[in-house]
Amino acid sequence: MRFDHAGVATEDAESLAFRYEDLFGCEIAHEERFGDLKVIFLGLADGYFELLEPREEGTISQFLESNGPGLHHIALRTDDVEAALDDAADVGVELIDEEPRPGAWGHEVAFLHPESTGGVLVEFVEG
Amino acid sequence: MRFDHAGVATEDAESLAFRYEDLFGCEIAHEERFGDLKVIFLGLADGYFELLEPREEGTISQFLESNGPGLHHIALRTDDVEAALDDAADVGVELIDEEPRPGAWGHEVAFLHPESTGGVLVEFVEG
Repeated sequence: MRFDHAGVATEDAESLAFRYEDLFGCEIAHEERFGDLKVIFLGLADGYFELLEPREEGTISQFLESNGPGLHHIALRTDDVEAALDDAADVGVELIDEEPRPGAWGHEVAFLHPESTGGVLVEFVEG
Repeated sequence: MRFDHAGVATEDAESLAFRYEDLFGCEIAHEERFGDLKVIFLGLADGYFELLEPREEGTISQFLESNGPGLHHIALRTDDVEAALDDAADVGVELIDEEPRPGAWGHEVAFLHPESTGGVLVEFVEG
């Protein structure tokens, strides 16, 4: 497995994208409206920042209310999300998604429960 | 710049290392006592998890008291931390470390202030 992206909750994805472009020399690789979110992916040499801006009430707006802006999750890239989920269940990890589901940018994704991963919200991304 | 590691605050680095080894197929790449911390680096294909366990009062013990265990920072690898800090200061980013300083695993590191990076604590790592 390898790092795919760091998910960042923000009130203003476009402003943060400008800041990260200036600061880290990354560029917008993809942008979309995904469910209740505006999502911007910024490309690094080997992965992405995923900026998550809520446009409606949802998990990210709730996260922002509780925690303020900042790191929301870490995504790891794997060739086979379904196999990775099976392996995770085998070692007793609680799953948020029992099966892969469509995520942003057309990828199959699944989230693990942070209670099982030391408080870290981990996403598996197929690719 | 590329991802170097995701820093995770934990009460028990060894137990979390076992869990991540089982779950993500990573292995312990480095382990040390660094200042007030026990630190374990777990290798992924292209980066690391850095597990941070406080052994004395300090910023990580305070983080755990305020937030509980979980994601603490993101580290980006660069060939030249000093140049990256200069560039960051030029675009108006507030720095925690004005100059590179010795970090865990013998690397030169510097932290940016999360107020300037959308609430994300970002570390530059030389390597």
